Amino acid sequence: MIAVLKSGTTDKQIENLSSWLKTQGLDVHLSRGSEHIILGLIGDTSKIDAELIESLEIVDSVKRISEPFKSANRKFHPDDSVINVGNTSVGGNIFAIMAGPCSVESEEQVMEIARAVKAAGATMLRGGAFKPRTSPYDFQGLKADGIELLLKAKKETGLPIVTEIMNANHLSLFDEVDVIQVGARNMQNFELLKELGKTNKPILLKRGLANTLKELLMSAEYIMAGGNENVILCERGIRTFETYTRNTLDLSAVPMLKELTHLPVIIDPSHATGVARLVKPMAMAAAACGADGLMIEVHNDPAHALCDGAQSLTPDAFAGVTRAVRRVLSAISEED
Amino acid sequence: MIAVLKSGTTDKQIENLSSWLKTQGLDVHLSRGSEHIILGLIGDTSKIDAELIESLEIVDSVKRISEPFKSANRKFHPDDSVINVGNTSVGGNIFAIMAGPCSVESEEQVMEIARAVKAAGATMLRGGAFKPRTSPYDFQGLKADGIELLLKAKKETGLPIVTEIMNANHLSLFDEVDVIQVGARNMQNFELLKELGKTNKPILLKRGLANTLKELLMSAEYIMAGGNENVILCERGIRTFETYTRNTLDLSAVPMLKELTHLPVIIDPSHATGVARLVKPMAMAAAACGADGLMIEVHNDPAHALCDGAQSLTPDAFAGVTRAVRRVLSAISEED
Amino acid sequence: MIAVLKSGTTDKQIENLSSWLKTQGLDVHLSRGSEHIILGLIGDTSKIDAELIESLEIVDSVKRISEPFKSANRKFHPDDSVINVGNTSVGGNIFAIMAGPCSVESEEQVMEIARAVKAAGATMLRGGAFKPRTSPYDFQGLKADGIELLLKAKKETGLPIVTEIMNANHLSLFDEVDVIQVGARNMQNFELLKELGKTNKPILLKRGLANTLKELLMSAEYIMAGGNENVILCERGIRTFETYTRNTLDLSAVPMLKELTHLPVIIDPSHATGVARLVKPMAMAAAACGADGLMIEVHNDPAHALCDGAQSLTPDAFAGVTRAVRRVLSAISEED
Amino acid sequence: MIAVLKSGTTDKQIENLSSWLKTQGLDVHLSRGSEHIILGLIGDTSKIDAELIESLEIVDSVKRISEPFKSANRKFHPDDSVINVGNTSVGGNIFAIMAGPCSVESEEQVMEIARAVKAAGATMLRGGAFKPRTSPYDFQGLKADGIELLLKAKKETGLPIVTEIMNANHLSLFDEVDVIQVGARNMQNFELLKELGKTNKPILLKRGLANTLKELLMSAEYIMAGGNENVILCERGIRTFETYTRNTLDLSAVPMLKELTHLPVIIDPSHATGVARLVKPMAMAAAACGADGLMIEVHNDPAHALCDGAQSLTPDAFAGVTRAVRRVLSAISEED
Repeated sequence: MIAVLKSGTTDKQIENLSSWLKTQGLDVHLSRGSEHIILGLIGDTSKIDAELIESLEIVDSVKRISEPFKSANRKFHPDDSVINVGNTSVGGNIFAIMAGPCSVESEEQVMEIARAVKAAGATMLRGGAFKPRTSPYDFQGLKADGIELLLKAKKETGLPIVTEIMNANHLSLFDEVDVIQVGARNMQNFELLKELGKTNKPILLKRGLANTLKELLMSAEYIMAGGNENVILCERGIRTFETYTRNTLDLSAVPMLKELTHLPVIIDPSHATGVARLVKPMAMAAAACGADGLMIEVHNDPAHALCDGAQSLTPDAFAGVTRAVRRVLSAISEED
Repeated sequence: MIAVLKSGTTDKQIENLSSWLKTQGLDVHLSRGSEHIILGLIGDTSKIDAELIESLEIVDSVKRISEPFKSANRKFHPDDSVINVGNTSVGGNIFAIMAGPCSVESEEQVMEIARAVKAAGATMLRGGAFKPRTSPYDFQGLKADGIELLLKAKKETGLPIVTEIMNANHLSLFDEVDVIQVGARNMQNFELLKELGKTNKPILLKRGLANTLKELLMSAEYIMAGGNENVILCERGIRTFETYTRNTLDLSAVPMLKELTHLPVIIDPSHATGVARLVKPMAMAAAACGADGLMIEVHNDPAHALCDGAQSLTPDAFAGVTRAVRRVLSAISEED
Repeated sequence: MIAVLKSGTTDKQIENLSSWLKTQGLDVHLSRGSEHIILGLIGDTSKIDAELIESLEIVDSVKRISEPFKSANRKFHPDDSVINVGNTSVGGNIFAIMAGPCSVESEEQVMEIARAVKAAGATMLRGGAFKPRTSPYDFQGLKADGIELLLKAKKETGLPIVTEIMNANHLSLFDEVDVIQVGARNMQNFELLKELGKTNKPILLKRGLANTLKELLMSAEYIMAGGNENVILCERGIRTFETYTRNTLDLSAVPMLKELTHLPVIIDPSHATGVARLVKPMAMAAAACGADGLMIEVHNDPAHALCDGAQSLTPDAFAGVTRAVRRVLSAISEED
Repeated sequence: MIAVLKSGTTDKQIENLSSWLKTQGLDVHLSRGSEHIILGLIGDTSKIDAELIESLEIVDSVKRISEPFKSANRKFHPDDSVINVGNTSVGGNIFAIMAGPCSVESEEQVMEIARAVKAAGATMLRGGAFKPRTSPYDFQGLKADGIELLLKAKKETGLPIVTEIMNANHLSLFDEVDVIQVGARNMQNFELLKELGKTNKPILLKRGLANTLKELLMSAEYIMAGGNENVILCERGIRTFETYTRNTLDLSAVPMLKELTHLPVIIDPSHATGVARLVKPMAMAAAACGADGLMIEVHNDPAHALCDGAQSLTPDAFAGVTRAVRRVLSAISEED
């Protein structure tokens, strides 16, 4: 960590600051220029509050050299983390494909979709029981009943299930859920993250609409600092000025995150683009740039128009996606 | 609400959709062009899920003409709402000035600041007891003890207090708190909003870093739909590419929100800019464009360097801000 | 095009507007609701100024149903455009790979790189002679001399050359240049676009840092409206809040543009990410989602540290990229 | 300027780099930590290419401490610049109000508006003769004829005129124009900036839609480096995700720019918001936070619906704005 001090800083002030920094367990290296004084802070700075130092009157700016995340940092954990989920895993050699409906609507619906996505090669079933909706007047999900239906589908198909939590008080309902999802809007709901850190469940953490990769990793750190290291990161599009797509899928997040952290990284092309026609090409691109898996919305009943979501694929279209993705994965695994 | 249908849509499909829409209580007007078919949906569309309709295979796009918020809508509530807070109010004739430290640190600190901001013209005391921090390793606030200290300061100075909630399970700690703040990161924590909707406390709802004004109003609607109409909106900067300021203060949100809603709107120039030197000019600008109040960070102890936050004002500087703001308010209240 | 009129609009005003719209060659369909009046405007609206209509006092909002671009619109030109460039092409069956140095620095440098990228499978040589730099004090390129050096490299290797124009007055220098590049900062330099529309040179048009896909297509339309239909679109990253990468590469632009337009679309992963290590995975992702080609920065002299740009690949690393990209292209071309 | 070197860097490499930096006129201070090596570069770094240094293989990152702009830097020019414009000025004691139509349409129109805005207190007449339009099919302005009409209005009213240039080849048409405007889309049209740097005309430089304040100042630097120090900066809204307003007006740019530079800063609330109703409150806010002036769109003929632009004010409404702004200016000029 580097602290740049203002030019008028007195020796006494520098000494006071240096002493305080040393009590925080850091070595302090002073470098004095004609206009600025630079303090190099050496040691474990991951638990130092950079804003606090930057707020000092004599400090011009603070720059981290080491990243502020520790448990998630690849530097201290060079090997890829593999998160075991039921009979499968995320990270490592298995390419995870989580598929299913945006919302669980009925037993018939979820069963039919579960069978279809399993047949098409999905490794897990996803489905929303608690639905975060912008409007209080929109459908909020089947809640506990939705989780029951997912568990029935799990029982029949053997697919582990992934579903979103919105409130730590609901945790008991998630006992048999395999992966608990934290949605984009709750990425910085730190109270929820802390509670999830006390469980040993795999947590699928979605990047917020306006959150940096560093903030995503710091939110993972909240969960890991509590003792739960089973975190799966998910890029699902960020908010920009572009309007043809619902969000802008930031695929460069995949290789960048893989460099920064040992945690697995998956892509949700359905929410990222909001356009079913773009799901296949973006799923292929995600596989090509090194993602550990995908989360894709699939719906079963195109005849019943009200359920054919703008971003949902039919089971047939989804099968086409998995075949294309497998071809890409096979191509990139060939020796150079 | 207008739904544009795709060109190949059959009469049968149009009839099916129209019938369904009529069961939702809407009148449907058909307009047929050479390339597109347009359905005008007339009636109360605020509780219609536009995304659901847009997701229909035969629908090209859906455009709302009426806004999706109802309780917060000025159209159905032309007069400004005045939110009573202890012996003062927000909205109406009183210009609210909420001031105090970012974090409550000690009894001495909060008492001294409370006295100082009261003397300088603050109408309420703000202070953080539960602190949302990006890093789990940063100071998380004094929590329940922090609220106790704020209540002591309230008792002595008579200033109503404003402090942030991060978890609905903590609600009992907020019994004597006058205004409960929902932070930017929790603006779409819908579970928290629903719980706050069951109270009758004034809620200060901050705009999220990447949330539109419409989303802010929909989050207010979550609280109001639960029965609590005491909502104060707060613009505190949005996230953009600019780096000289921490966020970009969107002051045009003030007159735009005042047009859309009857709820009061206040500005937080401290978090918006992250730079103490910019607080005064932006506070004056907020007053000039019609804000109902301000929320400003003030700290008491510039000698103790670690507390002179980059965005905090000293009590003296804060007094200069209130004097300048009063001059602006006086100027704009003159008859034209 | 749909115009929504305000509720108080009188019959006389509606008639006046309808009459005027009819003189613009449009049919007008009226649909009257309880709160709004909707005009459906049928006919060729691509040359109608929507902002002008929206600015009318009686008009609430205007929504285009047809896109405002015509020459670039796939609807009126269903087949992919193939842009012939010397002995090769962009679009169609050939995957274009444009590679070379950010700046042309010397004859030795450009010759060595040209030979290396040709050997590694590049189909064109790129190199900057006129360099747009944020600072007037930074190196501005070798200008005319740089173009001379590129032409020498073209003569020896047979690779067509791509280089950027910043000023229409320089056009005579570009006589033997094969593809003229318009940089991101000049995407809406309409005067330059008009001049390029008068030539018959292939134009590589880069998306601006904060420009929508619609604006990119409207800028292509400026060139095409002048008679030059040889336009190649290039996504090179947009500006967001993320800081780990220089820009955010919007790969969903590829399938979205391919749907909207018949023009070829290429990707520049070097400028998009600003990080050499991310070029290979993003190049593979671009190939996987249907891009027609790539533009990649390659530099020859890693021993001479000052030239090993943060985003430039060595010729060896570049050869690794082309091999990986070829494997992806081969995989996605297999029958389903 | 600080350069952080990677941990594996050898002494030989450090020495090579240090030697090269010294040839650039810099002193180099070395600070060696356990994980990183830090070089403090002391001297005039404003003409150093930070990207070039950052691109070195051994360099992890580079951070400027001094700003890269020099002529525009308040540090080297503490007093406010006053730009003389005909019989008035921008900066200093006069609050500049530039008003007029978005486009010059006819002699009658421009004359009537010129008289009206003068009567209402405008200090200059603005009007578009060359119009940058997103679509090639939209009205592109009256061009040279438009400038003639503005000059007639200048002759009658005595108001200096401000109008936009899009092409340096048109410069001879601007001989009698008082202030030449560079539009947002041309803010980084460096070739145009260089040509304007050779003139001695006041240049009104608008901030680009996605440009940082630093980039705006670097573009001013392009003009000033050519010898023309008469630059007026204009904030006119930046592009964000918000859709209720056309752009997001960044008013904190005013006090931030006033701190960084001695150049005057004005605000264009018309383009920033795109909504006529927001022009008055945002003009008042601009005055309150220290802007040196305003640029406002005014149109004369509300009866002729096609000209009542969504963001244009009637002369009467404009007179209301100037009165309100004068009251704010008077209030903020009072002693504290």
